[in-house]
Amino acid sequence: MFGTGLNKPLHGSAKALVERMNTSRSPIISVDLPSGLSADGVIADAPGTVRATHTLTFQCPKPAFFYSECADHVGDPVVLSLGMDVGFLRGLDSDLQLIESADVRALVPHRGRFDHKGRHGHALLIGGSQSMIGAAVLAVNAALRSGTGLVTAHAPGCGVQIIQGSAPEAICIADENHVDISSLPDLKAYSGIGVGPGLGLNSGGMLKLLIQEALVPLVLDADALNTLSENRTWLAFLKEGTMLTPHPKEFDRLFGQHNTSRERIARACEEARKRGLVIVLKGAYTAVCAPSGKVYFNPTGDPGMAKGGSGDVLTGLLTGLLARGIGPVSAGILGTFIHGRAGELAAERIGREGMTAMDIVRLLPDAWREITS
Amino acid sequence: MFGTGLNKPLHGSAKALVERMNTSRSPIISVDLPSGLSADGVIADAPGTVRATHTLTFQCPKPAFFYSECADHVGDPVVLSLGMDVGFLRGLDSDLQLIESADVRALVPHRGRFDHKGRHGHALLIGGSQSMIGAAVLAVNAALRSGTGLVTAHAPGCGVQIIQGSAPEAICIADENHVDISSLPDLKAYSGIGVGPGLGLNSGGMLKLLIQEALVPLVLDADALNTLSENRTWLAFLKEGTMLTPHPKEFDRLFGQHNTSRERIARACEEARKRGLVIVLKGAYTAVCAPSGKVYFNPTGDPGMAKGGSGDVLTGLLTGLLARGIGPVSAGILGTFIHGRAGELAAERIGREGMTAMDIVRLLPDAWREITS
Amino acid sequence: MFGTGLNKPLHGSAKALVERMNTSRSPIISVDLPSGLSADGVIADAPGTVRATHTLTFQCPKPAFFYSECADHVGDPVVLSLGMDVGFLRGLDSDLQLIESADVRALVPHRGRFDHKGRHGHALLIGGSQSMIGAAVLAVNAALRSGTGLVTAHAPGCGVQIIQGSAPEAICIADENHVDISSLPDLKAYSGIGVGPGLGLNSGGMLKLLIQEALVPLVLDADALNTLSENRTWLAFLKEGTMLTPHPKEFDRLFGQHNTSRERIARACEEARKRGLVIVLKGAYTAVCAPSGKVYFNPTGDPGMAKGGSGDVLTGLLTGLLARGIGPVSAGILGTFIHGRAGELAAERIGREGMTAMDIVRLLPDAWREITS
Amino acid sequence: MFGTGLNKPLHGSAKALVERMNTSRSPIISVDLPSGLSADGVIADAPGTVRATHTLTFQCPKPAFFYSECADHVGDPVVLSLGMDVGFLRGLDSDLQLIESADVRALVPHRGRFDHKGRHGHALLIGGSQSMIGAAVLAVNAALRSGTGLVTAHAPGCGVQIIQGSAPEAICIADENHVDISSLPDLKAYSGIGVGPGLGLNSGGMLKLLIQEALVPLVLDADALNTLSENRTWLAFLKEGTMLTPHPKEFDRLFGQHNTSRERIARACEEARKRGLVIVLKGAYTAVCAPSGKVYFNPTGDPGMAKGGSGDVLTGLLTGLLARGIGPVSAGILGTFIHGRAGELAAERIGREGMTAMDIVRLLPDAWREITS
Repeated sequence: MFGTGLNKPLHGSAKALVERMNTSRSPIISVDLPSGLSADGVIADAPGTVRATHTLTFQCPKPAFFYSECADHVGDPVVLSLGMDVGFLRGLDSDLQLIESADVRALVPHRGRFDHKGRHGHALLIGGSQSMIGAAVLAVNAALRSGTGLVTAHAPGCGVQIIQGSAPEAICIADENHVDISSLPDLKAYSGIGVGPGLGLNSGGMLKLLIQEALVPLVLDADALNTLSENRTWLAFLKEGTMLTPHPKEFDRLFGQHNTSRERIARACEEARKRGLVIVLKGAYTAVCAPSGKVYFNPTGDPGMAKGGSGDVLTGLLTGLLARGIGPVSAGILGTFIHGRAGELAAERIGREGMTAMDIVRLLPDAWREITS
Repeated sequence: MFGTGLNKPLHGSAKALVERMNTSRSPIISVDLPSGLSADGVIADAPGTVRATHTLTFQCPKPAFFYSECADHVGDPVVLSLGMDVGFLRGLDSDLQLIESADVRALVPHRGRFDHKGRHGHALLIGGSQSMIGAAVLAVNAALRSGTGLVTAHAPGCGVQIIQGSAPEAICIADENHVDISSLPDLKAYSGIGVGPGLGLNSGGMLKLLIQEALVPLVLDADALNTLSENRTWLAFLKEGTMLTPHPKEFDRLFGQHNTSRERIARACEEARKRGLVIVLKGAYTAVCAPSGKVYFNPTGDPGMAKGGSGDVLTGLLTGLLARGIGPVSAGILGTFIHGRAGELAAERIGREGMTAMDIVRLLPDAWREITS
Repeated sequence: MFGTGLNKPLHGSAKALVERMNTSRSPIISVDLPSGLSADGVIADAPGTVRATHTLTFQCPKPAFFYSECADHVGDPVVLSLGMDVGFLRGLDSDLQLIESADVRALVPHRGRFDHKGRHGHALLIGGSQSMIGAAVLAVNAALRSGTGLVTAHAPGCGVQIIQGSAPEAICIADENHVDISSLPDLKAYSGIGVGPGLGLNSGGMLKLLIQEALVPLVLDADALNTLSENRTWLAFLKEGTMLTPHPKEFDRLFGQHNTSRERIARACEEARKRGLVIVLKGAYTAVCAPSGKVYFNPTGDPGMAKGGSGDVLTGLLTGLLARGIGPVSAGILGTFIHGRAGELAAERIGREGMTAMDIVRLLPDAWREITS
Repeated sequence: MFGTGLNKPLHGSAKALVERMNTSRSPIISVDLPSGLSADGVIADAPGTVRATHTLTFQCPKPAFFYSECADHVGDPVVLSLGMDVGFLRGLDSDLQLIESADVRALVPHRGRFDHKGRHGHALLIGGSQSMIGAAVLAVNAALRSGTGLVTAHAPGCGVQIIQGSAPEAICIADENHVDISSLPDLKAYSGIGVGPGLGLNSGGMLKLLIQEALVPLVLDADALNTLSENRTWLAFLKEGTMLTPHPKEFDRLFGQHNTSRERIARACEEARKRGLVIVLKGAYTAVCAPSGKVYFNPTGDPGMAKGGSGDVLTGLLTGLLARGIGPVSAGILGTFIHGRAGELAAERIGREGMTAMDIVRLLPDAWREITS
């Protein structure tokens, strides 16, 4: 699915021409793909690959457009229609999918006139440690805007007042430990669980227990992933459908160093397939890697989201979606799309430089409205 | 008032026809009522009762429209006018009433130019426990938007900073106990009292004392109701006009299991009449059951309110209305209408999925304005 | 200035006619004044005084319009112009003045391009006790919107986190006592001091010391006034220009029971003159009573302000104005006008029922803008 | 660069004429400069220098316009174009520069589609003490709106809950000391450090260590500067490019008393050059004094910013800009411009009297948008 990983480099006069173009400072427009770059993002020889200002491609974006290492070659990509039959294209079974608004709309669960809060589940967020309670605040507030019926936070004692003051709609259970989380609440009440935001690295015992005992969908993020990296044998105990939401560094700590986005995503898909996990590899184009081996690229998002806390917001949102009974692949697709769209709205309305993660939380409702109205 | 509870099932070819219709996947429009469903909501034989897409009925909605178990049969109800004289209809003495905007306007107390805060009462909210201080925050903030003159919260020690930080307009008294409420403040100052939001189940002693000592209107909600369920003999000591605001599960814990909304509401009316209580049975169409035996169905509300904390907001609002000197039946009618309307505004402006209980609080003022301008 | 206090009652057929009118349920329009009511608000015989629906008066409102006991007789007052020369009227030296927007504009201090924060003073707010920290939060936030350069709060230990979380622009000094204020900070830094909001009755020692030691303008409110009532000998030590901001009950505790607004205001003027105080007697038409014997009635305000915390907002605002170097009479006029106008804006935009004291704080900037632009 | 500091006073009939004009109460319009005032702001003889209502000058503002001691002579300055070639003027190498919007736009770092948060640095804010945690809250919130990738606060134990509740996007490390900061966190993670807001005077040990150990750009403000004043030998250890952000009093404590803005700025430039520092001398026209000896005057700002906390906002913003890798002179220019512009927006939208420092924080994103769109 990720091609052969091979790509023939240019040489001779073609290579010389490309090198000359790249130093010309003139605008360069590539058609289809920059010469030297393969559609699946392999760069055989960087100096001998065109660094386009714009790349005009046809009908569908190419995977290369989603990889950071290709960005300097692709420049600004533009997808032009050839008038091909869209239904036919969609019918093609590709392992690489671009998430589209219509796909996402179909995943929103129905909310009936007589539904009570129990119908939309009860999310449990486990996170926070002495210096990172704010991460839990962000995640809990995002979960509260996920459409789930009820949200409970489990936090160290030092975080309870902060969370209750910032999210009065949530229940907040104090861990017996004041500065870190060392135990689990009774898990029976919850239909979806998220763990990690602001957790720190002192909660391994709790995390191990959670992996063993949780019977409902689970999402692991941030320091839960870092703890997992230090205890990789636990990976084998993750139940099918468990979600991991690493950024590239967290992914590499878990599954080894990767030099390109292409290789990392390929590995994520392999791990997702092998272990039955849903791996949400975060980045400019977040990749939702499903146990089926398919990868869904999320087109929404804004560079203004590249700030502390954006990931905590996603985890809270995903936890709420899981709690509602949405399957983990669907939750990954729906969650990353809404999260990214809220970030785009924040960039539009607040601005790319000045926006913060809490602004993304505040705009989740507007992102929901776009796909439910 | 709730009819005979009997309804003759269809049989033979009529039943066969209905069963065929129900599996046809075609839109089904029922006129008056779906065949097999009685106006008062009895379903004699579910498979043999039409499952309409829409039900067109005449002049008034039928009680069946307000019961969740009938929803799949009624589909989307539409009430059509037959040009009947509305004054005549209103003059008919029915035990089942639909709350209308005009009724609600008439219940708003006059606020005179020279009124001081003492003229609009002093509400006392008793609630909160270690992990559920947020529920008290919501109730107190709702009470602050009820038009009452002054609001005091009585909370466990651990909740005082949170409530004072979130509701500076309120006084907040710390219980001698840090994590639960174990005692009562001097009750002389208050003209209306609400108890329950976030209370937990360790405050039975306080609740018993409150029931014995309170001389002003009282509303019991949430864990106050659950504590009452475990001490049903206390029911006999509730003063006339005391309000209970159970959701269906809380109601059933108090008064026994009921299988249908119709039966539960009938029982609520019976208990309200027998005990002189006002029972606000919460749901998509909240039913305010009065000691007179009448039941007032509230038409406002939105499925987006089916989330943790919405009930706490209602309790706070009702407490404030009682404190203002509004009678408990009127408070129930006025409070559920405004609360539901604020929820509708939240759904419109913030969105059904992303809205939270605090958004309902924030929109209470706008709901007030609609009925006071 | 408050007239003779005498008013000849109607009798005979005139009285009978009035009594008949009052029971007629017809609209009654009085011209100039309702028969039986004097311009200065004396009601000789209530049953024999017309209870008008509207009173049409000429050129200026009559003092009677500002007294709550006359409200049922005056109904809705309307002031009609006779085309009299406004300049002439203003030139008349009356002890009773109605504050007008133009007067208020003239009192706003100039803010120069090169002014630093030190030019606009440093306000000290002393208030809060265990259950009433919110009152201090309201006062501090109002002071922050008074235009003063810097605001410091002095609060009991239990209130420091709450105030700092709610008003980060302010400095907040913790008293050595955790639940009440028992000591004073060094007063040298401050140019205006307010004491009272949320203070409770256990801070008499501190208050006595403050009265003795403060060398800058001082405003006493709420429990500072109640403490003063219990220690009336301290009145003699209040420095000239000290402001008191009682509501009628607090006033009566200080200076004895009064049966009518007219008598209470007359007494306030007498005390203000005798003691060199500025007494701001709060009500629907707040009266600023100056040492000169003049009283300035504030026309702004809304019945929606009759809720807990409105007075704390006024105190915070007045403290900030005093700190800026505005004289106490001017501060009283400017402060009550802006405060009332912010309340009117809250009523317009948020609504009379749903508005709270914090909404008044939030609208202080808009009230300022109306008189500075 | 600051001229000779000499200026020949008027005498004889010229002086008499000026004195007569100054007492005339007529509007006075000066052309070029008020007689008696030199372009570089020297007032040889104040009574003999024209006090203009307006000064019409040509092509460029004169330095005198930026000095508070000249304000009464300059009145409202108006700069008129002579049609001179702007490119030519800009090409002239002057040590005194007026910051312009176009200069500022060029300093905004590029934010690429694939940038992750690590690309925009990690800011460390060190500040807060028992009574001044709010200053740290303001600085941290400003840093969060600086476009940096991550913000960490280091605060005394008593401040951690407040900061985490007010800035959930930030990490907040508790000092081992509860009321003051006495130690440093591990500095390796940070790319820019700010110290001072709300610090108090008990953190000298920490500050000394920080100056010794910090390897990344550093900004010192408020009590960090006051501590430095008491330990002036430490000045020699400040690394090249360190930023100081004194207001005039703090500057004079550091570098001796100055009687005029002109002298103070001249001294700041000398110190900046000698010590390799960037000195941001705050005032109505904040002067960014570079190690090159150049001074950049910031034209944005509003008198409504002359309130407690405005400086803390600037420090937080500058810290974030340094963390992003912007050089200290550029950070000074960009930061003072955006900060002042946010203050202008606050004055426009909230109002000069009612605005607070937190309003400036809230409007930083809008100020960013003006220069990035």
